[in-house]
Amino acid sequence: MDNLPVETSLEIREKYSHDWTEDLRFVPDAVAFPDTPETLQQVLRYAYTHDIPIIPAGGRTGLSGGMLPVKGGWVVSLEKLNRILLIDTQNLIAVVQAGVITQTLHESVEAVGLFYPPDPSSRGSCTIGGNIAHNAGGVRAIKYGTTREYVLGIEGFLPNGTPIRTGTHTLKNSTGYNLTQLFVGSEGTLVVIHTAILKLLPKPAHVQTLLLGFPEARSAIQAVVKILQSGILPAAIEFMERDAVRFGQAYLGEMLQPGIEEFGGLLLVEVDGNHWETLEKEAAQIEEIAWQSGALQSWYAQSSAEREKLWRLRRCLGIAVKSSGPYKEEDTVVPRTVLPDLLDKVKELGKKYNFRSVCYGHVGDGNLHVNILRDALPKEAWENDIPKAVEELFRFVIAHRGAISGEHGIGWVQRRYMPLQFSPVELALMKGLKAVFDPKGLLNPGKIFPD
Amino acid sequence: MDNLPVETSLEIREKYSHDWTEDLRFVPDAVAFPDTPETLQQVLRYAYTHDIPIIPAGGRTGLSGGMLPVKGGWVVSLEKLNRILLIDTQNLIAVVQAGVITQTLHESVEAVGLFYPPDPSSRGSCTIGGNIAHNAGGVRAIKYGTTREYVLGIEGFLPNGTPIRTGTHTLKNSTGYNLTQLFVGSEGTLVVIHTAILKLLPKPAHVQTLLLGFPEARSAIQAVVKILQSGILPAAIEFMERDAVRFGQAYLGEMLQPGIEEFGGLLLVEVDGNHWETLEKEAAQIEEIAWQSGALQSWYAQSSAEREKLWRLRRCLGIAVKSSGPYKEEDTVVPRTVLPDLLDKVKELGKKYNFRSVCYGHVGDGNLHVNILRDALPKEAWENDIPKAVEELFRFVIAHRGAISGEHGIGWVQRRYMPLQFSPVELALMKGLKAVFDPKGLLNPGKIFPD
Repeated sequence: MDNLPVETSLEIREKYSHDWTEDLRFVPDAVAFPDTPETLQQVLRYAYTHDIPIIPAGGRTGLSGGMLPVKGGWVVSLEKLNRILLIDTQNLIAVVQAGVITQTLHESVEAVGLFYPPDPSSRGSCTIGGNIAHNAGGVRAIKYGTTREYVLGIEGFLPNGTPIRTGTHTLKNSTGYNLTQLFVGSEGTLVVIHTAILKLLPKPAHVQTLLLGFPEARSAIQAVVKILQSGILPAAIEFMERDAVRFGQAYLGEMLQPGIEEFGGLLLVEVDGNHWETLEKEAAQIEEIAWQSGALQSWYAQSSAEREKLWRLRRCLGIAVKSSGPYKEEDTVVPRTVLPDLLDKVKELGKKYNFRSVCYGHVGDGNLHVNILRDALPKEAWENDIPKAVEELFRFVIAHRGAISGEHGIGWVQRRYMPLQFSPVELALMKGLKAVFDPKGLLNPGKIFPD
Repeated sequence: MDNLPVETSLEIREKYSHDWTEDLRFVPDAVAFPDTPETLQQVLRYAYTHDIPIIPAGGRTGLSGGMLPVKGGWVVSLEKLNRILLIDTQNLIAVVQAGVITQTLHESVEAVGLFYPPDPSSRGSCTIGGNIAHNAGGVRAIKYGTTREYVLGIEGFLPNGTPIRTGTHTLKNSTGYNLTQLFVGSEGTLVVIHTAILKLLPKPAHVQTLLLGFPEARSAIQAVVKILQSGILPAAIEFMERDAVRFGQAYLGEMLQPGIEEFGGLLLVEVDGNHWETLEKEAAQIEEIAWQSGALQSWYAQSSAEREKLWRLRRCLGIAVKSSGPYKEEDTVVPRTVLPDLLDKVKELGKKYNFRSVCYGHVGDGNLHVNILRDALPKEAWENDIPKAVEELFRFVIAHRGAISGEHGIGWVQRRYMPLQFSPVELALMKGLKAVFDPKGLLNPGKIFPD
């Protein structure tokens, strides 16, 4: 172990004891910092021989506790594997190491006129490896899809250090089972990814951004279905309820627009493309649909600074709510038409279980982030009643053909709810898959599956 | 077995003894025609109990021998499971049974203003289940992706008849391992799919189609990279070399344009969208790039009839070549910049191994269909030398970061080449996955994996 890049000081172990999930802390036995695939392989081989659990970690911005070392072992931080190995401007492909920060990739490809669409709110800190592990979505998924649509191949190691490689530098591939897509969203439980082949797009030349204010959250969400039925495919359709805007503005210390907190619900809509006149038409059409759906006000971003201000508010909501005190964030996703009833259900459960909620999310995708605030709830209510409320919420979501996680993954905090979504046979199949890759059960143990 | 919808007459067994792959024939012991999920389940349970191999079949248009009953057993034709169960115009989702013909789905969703982009050339006969089994591509994959981008969930049975269900009616989902995507492209070896949840898009209002004639195949293909670097994302970029056009025109008995067989290579390009003026600009830009890349002529489709004529030619190429006599079709895919060298390699191998080839394909995706004609090759050369040529071709493809199948799958005829693409560990992992779903090895045996 002496030659391995492993740190055991309490300070470092504590730093790597948490991600952004609630206030959960699990201190690992050590933290490894490989800076090449070879040193990563050495770390894995040592750990495998000594039956040490391995927990791959990226930017540690996860919201489901996916990198928490709940069974001890070593956190393997991939942050030093942070090289962009290739940006192929002819074939529109990038090859990047797992530790590359998502925003760094954005900026690097945009500098040469290209575009990597997946755009989680945590893009300044999260990594491509973490995005792949959870199939991260973000604000542009409605038009461009989630991370999985951009992963063409993966290089990584089995827990015992054996290298494996999937995919090619091609957009299409029907050669054998699609291990690439099995690894996307597998939350670091099947393989340790160190490199990914990613699909890029040409960067759209223009964007047009508008903010739409509705009297009620419900009418804002209802407008989403109508916008998407019009034939326009916006790059983003984001929803914020009033309390979310309040939290965001307070956190930023910045007022977006005077009186904006008077609206029950806001939609932040963006269209993009190469032809400005098309975007103007589309934005005007969206505005018209919004007015017909009850909108009371609309604002166009008149400059990139104004656009940034709108997005700054939207992006900060998660951290704004987090900074207000203990909370749980649920990552529900339903067919878009179900969203108004989902929101009602959240508020009804709030009354029943006595909690306050703050909702926002990628409503174009049907993805509503439901933040349950602890406020002054006593410990017992927080620990016993809130899980019941979450279970009721998830039962509603599943009964309406949705899923309990749209983009955050199951990790540690949602695994107890997996039997709501899957039959025992389906869970057994998934466990069977895990055993094929990780027969010793050393890779990110205690995640995804209920005990 | 008396109560099962199983046919054993020689006539029917012979009818189900082949797909469109070469001239291969394997007569099954029986053919089952379940018309509900329940009767499918009964068939599977009976077969499982009696250790009868099961070969799921759709439109039997496959080009890799994926439905050939090479180990005997029962072909289970899903053609009677052909109901479109739901077209949800608000959430842009369809739920269809596996036996629905792809073109039927196209027409059904287009009738309500929606769009299912995957569009294999065999769309009039192939089925959604078969498209999922092979991750079918087709002419619109460059902009819209392949079948896998549209499959949100699957309902099916394990070989023993146990029902399983994956996915939801949502665009996003990070809940457990992505079994949906593992099943897409698994060629009927993991699960028998009877129903799929599919993503739809709004139907683009307009298309603009143009045909570009180049003096040489190489310059046509080189133009593709430049078109895609311009920032335009066409809905289709198809390539036909001179001989392909000759075969197609002879097969159809229809002349596309006088003198068209004089061009070494043709590109068929289509742009689509909601704004006609944008498409006109894009088409003009593509035309300009083509002229700069050496094009000698360009034609715009002036009517939907002219457009249909262009596509009729492109779509018939596979069957036109097939009808000319014995041949092998390879489904190579490489990064687009490699295409000119790939084409040279094909012709060089033709000289070395004394075969004639006809090439065409989805060059926007880097996907070149290489048809090797038997012509007057003696049996020994056909059986011994051509596989060597194919192996050389595949080694070239893999060395250039491509894959041996872009959209046809591995099936029966390409499985011997799998060790070129994958390490023994990777193949063992895939076999391990198969064993999780099909421990008895009864589901479509003899496919994908080399003996």
